[in-house]
Amino acid sequence: MKQILKQRRLSLAELCQTPVILWSGGAISRNFPANRYPFRASSHFLYFAGIPLENAAIKLDQGKLELFIDDPDPSLTLWHGETPLRAEIADKIGADAAYPLSELAHHTKDAATIPVQDPNTYKQQCQHLNRFLTFEGIELDLAQAIITLRLAHDAAALEELKKSASVAVLAHLAGMKASRNAKTEAEIRAAMESVIIAHDMTCAYNSIVTVHGEILHNEQYDHFLESGDLLLADVGAETYLGWASDITRTWPISGQFSPTQRDIYDVVLAAHDACIAKMCPGVEYREIHLLAARVMAEGLVSLGILQGDPDSLVEMDAHALFFPHGIGHLLGLDVHDMEDLGDLAGYENGRIRSNRFGLGYLRLDRPLRSQMLVTIEPGFYQVSAILGNPDIRTKYRSVVNWDKLSQFEDVRGIRIEDDVLITDNGIEVLTAALPTQADHIEEIIRD
Amino acid sequence: MKQILKQRRLSLAELCQTPVILWSGGAISRNFPANRYPFRASSHFLYFAGIPLENAAIKLDQGKLELFIDDPDPSLTLWHGETPLRAEIADKIGADAAYPLSELAHHTKDAATIPVQDPNTYKQQCQHLNRFLTFEGIELDLAQAIITLRLAHDAAALEELKKSASVAVLAHLAGMKASRNAKTEAEIRAAMESVIIAHDMTCAYNSIVTVHGEILHNEQYDHFLESGDLLLADVGAETYLGWASDITRTWPISGQFSPTQRDIYDVVLAAHDACIAKMCPGVEYREIHLLAARVMAEGLVSLGILQGDPDSLVEMDAHALFFPHGIGHLLGLDVHDMEDLGDLAGYENGRIRSNRFGLGYLRLDRPLRSQMLVTIEPGFYQVSAILGNPDIRTKYRSVVNWDKLSQFEDVRGIRIEDDVLITDNGIEVLTAALPTQADHIEEIIRD
Repeated sequence: MKQILKQRRLSLAELCQTPVILWSGGAISRNFPANRYPFRASSHFLYFAGIPLENAAIKLDQGKLELFIDDPDPSLTLWHGETPLRAEIADKIGADAAYPLSELAHHTKDAATIPVQDPNTYKQQCQHLNRFLTFEGIELDLAQAIITLRLAHDAAALEELKKSASVAVLAHLAGMKASRNAKTEAEIRAAMESVIIAHDMTCAYNSIVTVHGEILHNEQYDHFLESGDLLLADVGAETYLGWASDITRTWPISGQFSPTQRDIYDVVLAAHDACIAKMCPGVEYREIHLLAARVMAEGLVSLGILQGDPDSLVEMDAHALFFPHGIGHLLGLDVHDMEDLGDLAGYENGRIRSNRFGLGYLRLDRPLRSQMLVTIEPGFYQVSAILGNPDIRTKYRSVVNWDKLSQFEDVRGIRIEDDVLITDNGIEVLTAALPTQADHIEEIIRD
Repeated sequence: MKQILKQRRLSLAELCQTPVILWSGGAISRNFPANRYPFRASSHFLYFAGIPLENAAIKLDQGKLELFIDDPDPSLTLWHGETPLRAEIADKIGADAAYPLSELAHHTKDAATIPVQDPNTYKQQCQHLNRFLTFEGIELDLAQAIITLRLAHDAAALEELKKSASVAVLAHLAGMKASRNAKTEAEIRAAMESVIIAHDMTCAYNSIVTVHGEILHNEQYDHFLESGDLLLADVGAETYLGWASDITRTWPISGQFSPTQRDIYDVVLAAHDACIAKMCPGVEYREIHLLAARVMAEGLVSLGILQGDPDSLVEMDAHALFFPHGIGHLLGLDVHDMEDLGDLAGYENGRIRSNRFGLGYLRLDRPLRSQMLVTIEPGFYQVSAILGNPDIRTKYRSVVNWDKLSQFEDVRGIRIEDDVLITDNGIEVLTAALPTQADHIEEIIRD
């Protein structure tokens, strides 16, 4: 760990001459002070400190590392057992010096930082640096430097990301196997998350496990399962060191897709496969998104749901009636990696979000580079807020065959999502161990 | 729900003439703004509003209920689906009026509140009321009034508390059954928490599932299980409406206690049973704690670990060498109910914490009353911070038989915890469906 952390610091020093202080943040109380949400250190801190220390800060300056953390209160040993001392932690992460937190005030001169999510620590950051923190000036420079590093995952990061992906794969397999005997969404969620917990990992984000996949950010799990339902599960793991995975599969509870479900599933899968086949260093991610849109449009035309020329349909955002989100996002220490920096990480310098319906939700608009990890997650949804909107129905009146569409009412939401690493000469799908083919998924469920 | 909420408001109005505003709080970002910890509404809000509304406030005044919440942003329907409108929520909870949040500023005159945990909402509370919030003046009066109500659980609360307890019982049974095949603490934790998730509940607190029960607040799950290990599991559920359960069991991974483990287990169980047998309205909880201490002292004397007269041993806190925490705490919407109010709820007016080693950690010092729910959780631990402390060893030199104690080194930590409701004429153990007898537990594991 020492060696990789040193390499990260040296790389940062090349890009950023300012001294840098990164805070880890503190645990947040849930309903009373001693009942706290599980602590999650700031991802930027984790990247350079390697381990999730609570209430700590590190200073990075010309490749040197200083650690600021208080030794555990001896009176708390009764409750928490022996916990590592500052000197032991400093040694473990290869710090050049280590101080109690009270010393930090004397080391903040000219330092840049990245604001953390925890409001209490954010306040400390502002007080220590004596200013409100915005992404301007030295903070913007620092953010850009960190983005450059974190966009390309090093070997240590990849090792963690692969561990995370492999556990998420097992969670999805467990979810599929649990389907035929489960009565509620919650029971399938339990089967999936218990795999993550059993591997001593956490969920990288609040799981989506629902028969109403058309509600994109559905965090309810109380629906009963009906035999004709498709279940959409978007569940990912996070390792102890903070590295995330992000997988979605959609499967028939019964173990058999209906013909209409199968038709749409295969359209989504065709988009998924076409995107992955096209990815390699240098390709614009936005083009991958548009490729997904075109393959979706082609498929929906061939099913008779859309009418017209696929390219023209994509130009008029007709694909977005059914596929309203982006094809994916960066993945790393955060499941939407570095999204705490707004679009700074997702959008190449000088680019901004489109106001087109079919592009505005794209979270990533950069050329792919080696060691970048992204998700590919095309989907098809019948969202009533879109398809029931009178203005939209009027605008797309001539390109949607509404009668035909009504034959597909047993398809509310389908998404297929994998984690794709860009390599020097192509790609590696970190989640490839989990089948995507409808036949294979049916076999797993019925097994 | 309307009826019970109205009853709670009317009861509050009898105790507190001040208008009251309670905020629910908002979700807290984890590592980036859109990746949030699962939302938990403030317990005081939940008590009077009934359901976990995010970013809402209620005003209670002379039994009237006003709701302040914004209607969902229509542009978010795409992501979150149709969510209930203000008017629908107002109807559901029986509000007399309902307004957007911006109206709240016009309704704050002379109002008292209880500060929430979420720092962003806490800031809003201070701004709205134009003062820093402390437990003085009208806030203290309000806190005392709410404590009076929440100390005695009404029928609707009890229904939820029993649901929560029954799921926690199933979780512990699953943990026991998973033990013989599990390789790590994390795997047993997974088996237990998956039961809670499958019932669409959450954990009421961060689970303790450890072979190092002597570390009282152990939240690590990475130890491998050895056949001679005792596993201590302190795991509780929380219903959707926020009501908690809290159970601890300690069992042998192998399905069989060693003779020394069994000896100590039976001492702890004797303390547990003696406490429960003694509880009824009017009895001081502090006396229950001291009873546990005396039964533990008696048991340890009979095993030869302590030497002397049990009452004298308790007076000199010798029991606390092995049982350093309190016998339990209030249970309700919080697992340490109302601990956000410091000791206001736990300690009868005019009482303060003892500075005695054997009493200072007692969280509850009140006479028991009907409808009060408390935990009973005696334990035995070999904590190196206590037993290895030279001053302590000197002080207790003559009452501990250290040689004898060394024969019990395979007993690191044992706790047995149940949830006990005080009734008009005695008690009801809400978690009684989970066996406590060593024989029964062995049977479940070996089954």
